[in-house]
Amino acid sequence: MNRVVTNAQRKKLTQQNENRARMLISCPDQPGIVAAVSRFLHEHGANIVQSDQYTMDPAGGMFFIRIEFDLNDLERRLEPLEVDFQEVVAEKFQMNWSIHCASRKKRLAIFVSKEDHCLLELLWQWQAGDLDAEIAMVISNHPDMRELVESFDIPYHHIPVTADTKPEAERKQLEVIGDQADTIVLARYMQILSPVFIEQYPNRVINIHHSFLPAFVGGKPYAQAYERGVKIIGATAHYVTEELDGGPIIEQDVQRVSHRDDVESLKRIGRHIERIVLARAVSWHVEDRILVHQNKTVVFN
Amino acid sequence: MNRVVTNAQRKKLTQQNENRARMLISCPDQPGIVAAVSRFLHEHGANIVQSDQYTMDPAGGMFFIRIEFDLNDLERRLEPLEVDFQEVVAEKFQMNWSIHCASRKKRLAIFVSKEDHCLLELLWQWQAGDLDAEIAMVISNHPDMRELVESFDIPYHHIPVTADTKPEAERKQLEVIGDQADTIVLARYMQILSPVFIEQYPNRVINIHHSFLPAFVGGKPYAQAYERGVKIIGATAHYVTEELDGGPIIEQDVQRVSHRDDVESLKRIGRHIERIVLARAVSWHVEDRILVHQNKTVVFN
Amino acid sequence: MNRVVTNAQRKKLTQQNENRARMLISCPDQPGIVAAVSRFLHEHGANIVQSDQYTMDPAGGMFFIRIEFDLNDLERRLEPLEVDFQEVVAEKFQMNWSIHCASRKKRLAIFVSKEDHCLLELLWQWQAGDLDAEIAMVISNHPDMRELVESFDIPYHHIPVTADTKPEAERKQLEVIGDQADTIVLARYMQILSPVFIEQYPNRVINIHHSFLPAFVGGKPYAQAYERGVKIIGATAHYVTEELDGGPIIEQDVQRVSHRDDVESLKRIGRHIERIVLARAVSWHVEDRILVHQNKTVVFN
Amino acid sequence: MNRVVTNAQRKKLTQQNENRARMLISCPDQPGIVAAVSRFLHEHGANIVQSDQYTMDPAGGMFFIRIEFDLNDLERRLEPLEVDFQEVVAEKFQMNWSIHCASRKKRLAIFVSKEDHCLLELLWQWQAGDLDAEIAMVISNHPDMRELVESFDIPYHHIPVTADTKPEAERKQLEVIGDQADTIVLARYMQILSPVFIEQYPNRVINIHHSFLPAFVGGKPYAQAYERGVKIIGATAHYVTEELDGGPIIEQDVQRVSHRDDVESLKRIGRHIERIVLARAVSWHVEDRILVHQNKTVVFN
Repeated sequence: MNRVVTNAQRKKLTQQNENRARMLISCPDQPGIVAAVSRFLHEHGANIVQSDQYTMDPAGGMFFIRIEFDLNDLERRLEPLEVDFQEVVAEKFQMNWSIHCASRKKRLAIFVSKEDHCLLELLWQWQAGDLDAEIAMVISNHPDMRELVESFDIPYHHIPVTADTKPEAERKQLEVIGDQADTIVLARYMQILSPVFIEQYPNRVINIHHSFLPAFVGGKPYAQAYERGVKIIGATAHYVTEELDGGPIIEQDVQRVSHRDDVESLKRIGRHIERIVLARAVSWHVEDRILVHQNKTVVFN
Repeated sequence: MNRVVTNAQRKKLTQQNENRARMLISCPDQPGIVAAVSRFLHEHGANIVQSDQYTMDPAGGMFFIRIEFDLNDLERRLEPLEVDFQEVVAEKFQMNWSIHCASRKKRLAIFVSKEDHCLLELLWQWQAGDLDAEIAMVISNHPDMRELVESFDIPYHHIPVTADTKPEAERKQLEVIGDQADTIVLARYMQILSPVFIEQYPNRVINIHHSFLPAFVGGKPYAQAYERGVKIIGATAHYVTEELDGGPIIEQDVQRVSHRDDVESLKRIGRHIERIVLARAVSWHVEDRILVHQNKTVVFN
Repeated sequence: MNRVVTNAQRKKLTQQNENRARMLISCPDQPGIVAAVSRFLHEHGANIVQSDQYTMDPAGGMFFIRIEFDLNDLERRLEPLEVDFQEVVAEKFQMNWSIHCASRKKRLAIFVSKEDHCLLELLWQWQAGDLDAEIAMVISNHPDMRELVESFDIPYHHIPVTADTKPEAERKQLEVIGDQADTIVLARYMQILSPVFIEQYPNRVINIHHSFLPAFVGGKPYAQAYERGVKIIGATAHYVTEELDGGPIIEQDVQRVSHRDDVESLKRIGRHIERIVLARAVSWHVEDRILVHQNKTVVFN
Repeated sequence: MNRVVTNAQRKKLTQQNENRARMLISCPDQPGIVAAVSRFLHEHGANIVQSDQYTMDPAGGMFFIRIEFDLNDLERRLEPLEVDFQEVVAEKFQMNWSIHCASRKKRLAIFVSKEDHCLLELLWQWQAGDLDAEIAMVISNHPDMRELVESFDIPYHHIPVTADTKPEAERKQLEVIGDQADTIVLARYMQILSPVFIEQYPNRVINIHHSFLPAFVGGKPYAQAYERGVKIIGATAHYVTEELDGGPIIEQDVQRVSHRDDVESLKRIGRHIERIVLARAVSWHVEDRILVHQNKTVVFN
């Protein structure tokens, strides 16, 4: 399959970004945080090119900031900078913080079952250069998409899952992931991951599911949505926590429907929203645009 | 308050519409319905100017049609036409049907409590000539909006409601409505109407409430939506049935929000969506664009 | 590449639809049209399963209708039905009409240059069974996408075009299309087709282009949109006429942008809207949902 | 007319905000700006509660920041703080900057002609406490809305305008505005203001107009939009510059339409979008969320 972004082009993009870093900080709000951080970066020769800041509830609330900065010779200077930052700034303000090199792309392990629309959108956007990540592998409990995935030169791991073999299957999944991927994307993966698995990737497992106003509980939500004659259907992408479908929401979107849409049509429209919403959420994650506090996200996009 | 549409203009609009009728039919689907109806109208001198038809589930499903037609001297000829139609067409096809003169506007009784945003939007659209109805009265369990409503020359009935006096209050409400209004609009009326009351106005009580993806149960949905960091909030207008907030949905809409929106901001945005969605639903109702089947609407807009 | 819809499934879908026809009619409005058409269909044993009708300007205006009907043994009975209809109904009402078998899928010739996003979306939706058409071939003035297209078992014709060779190139294009395709989709094809070419496919050449509010003329619209700080960008799909980008609009959609989106980001978002809007327009075309009158479309979706 | 927000409530809101200031800065980008500003504010005892920063084109580009901060005893300490800031920070970085007290509300002079929908929306949002401004006066070239405006206890100035009397009329307008208002809102004011007038209020005259994809030039855009069958109509709010409708865009929004919408319906929908978009733009202006650079806005909302 021909690539829109050639390797040469990719390399050029990487070079442009090789001195670009993204810093995420959350901490209890108090006076002087921005001053301390920006002075630190300035004194270390970094040039802030973009920053977003948000304070949740000024009185006794939380402070969040995302800073993009350029620093010459980043690769070599990052580690001492991190050591310094912890000592000079972070400890004083009780910061929860991280710095990410733009050139070290996030590496995705995409989990999929039998529906391919979310996987295809991620592959398409990755191929077009719109998804700034590496796709390390695809893991599926079914063999169906091997040919598709391998045609993109991406490894495909078929790991069947049954009620009995689930713990064993998760062990295999963790084994093939190893240190090859840092982010798990559940692209319509129809198995529930165990808390043990999820704990390995805190705020790094992204799931997509359909959403309705009002919500419909039970096994056939599209049939219920049709029976009730909803006028809008949607999808929600969220980080996975132990509470099923209850983790921090990353992105949501909707589309209008009408009485003319039968159950099949609602499902088709639902698939289109799901792939768009999941792709947006994954993009923001890999560009380090998301901070999580308690059960909600702060998305700087 | 000056009126955008003067009485003279209103009269002119009415004259244009005085021969315009709208027909709504639902019945079990079978061959020949459209032929029978359109032949009937043609033979009675009516000119179909617009029609919308929809069949739900071709095999053994339901047939819905909305027809706008012009008929000279409508006022005088409508009643015999209705008698004929029942005999010649409707019985054969087991039709649930009605004909509405466009010139006989629906008459609304608007129920309101303390929040005025939905009421104001209806008054504004009515005043601008965008809501093709008469506002017969406003009924409230609070005295607060009397001055506002009376400034539009609309009667205001203050009928207090407590847990103890509710049956008595509903009797008073039904009494003041009498035959002055045919449609009840709950424009943020914070009392639950009894089944006895609702039965009087089947598919003629319209309610508005906020909606979220996912839904939040309990008393403080906006606080919960904030805690969960939802990215979209919405509103749903529906016909009221005995099942609280479970009646046929007429219209829904949403707006994007972000982590920057605090609870107050979410509520403000929620109010804006509520007034837009309720006004749209009421418009469609008064223009006879809605058919109800089981628990869903077919909206021809 | 694995197919979501297997050939067996496709065959099943086809059988369900093999007696389904879609009828499109436009004519000057006058009383009795619906009666005449529905009586005709009823008398010929057809069962109307869905119909949409619209009259543009009741006084001396135009009448449009789309009817879906089922007729046993459609394949054999269609031709005599068409002969009858012309004699019995169409002539009397000066109708412009056509009947389409749902089982005879439209056959697309997709034209493409170097950008692949629109082509990929069409291939994806076709593969997912969401685009009810056959893709007969892809024609390009560049060789780049041969491998991609052929991986879907679709013929790829590379026909280079220069200012000098354009008439000759168009002759070749018409030759390879022959009777293999009935609809031309310009999926970011960056050559202007000659009036001679377009005349061959009246209201059967679909184009997509970016759209802005306000419109920007000249060669670099995204740069201009960035300079002006637009908050919304969009795309328009339309039938191609002799007037460049001036033909009947089929579908439009937009997405919000902000000052944070640089020119590259605007272009990326623009590509996403283009592929969604083009795919929707092509879907409606192949499902016979579009009537054209003068320079506008009536879309029954 | 009863007020949703009583004076007592308004006073309470004001007290909460009396120490809140908003700072807007734009300047050529260079290292150390954020550090210098936040250190300055920190050393002066200010507590940054929210900040948004954006750099346009990192290499040799422009730097924009909006900071909300709290400072005890703001009213008394603001002026010396401003003097200091100019000396200590602003000169060094060639800053274009301003500080606004949240408690000193912007004062609007709303210009209107015969259409009242935009005026009514502003009055409604102001009355509901959603528009954080004072409405100092309404100026109109027609007498029609005096009663409406005066019912809100807002002064109404009827200043007729003809081709001959325009310069004289503008002199009168400037005279009645005097120092009573700082922002001009053209709420469907159908006269073109002269450059001389506009110069008095740089980036402080806000206009609203309809927008289409594609744009239609000439006197009857809605008729043209109908003829072309557009599927989306919109509105644009912008700052007024000498170039007619060519100033920096503040906000845009759209709504879907269909072939069923006749010219009157398109106009009605257009009015609804105009009032929503204008109200949003005015809100952002009065909350100091907009910076202007060259011909575009940076909106921190």
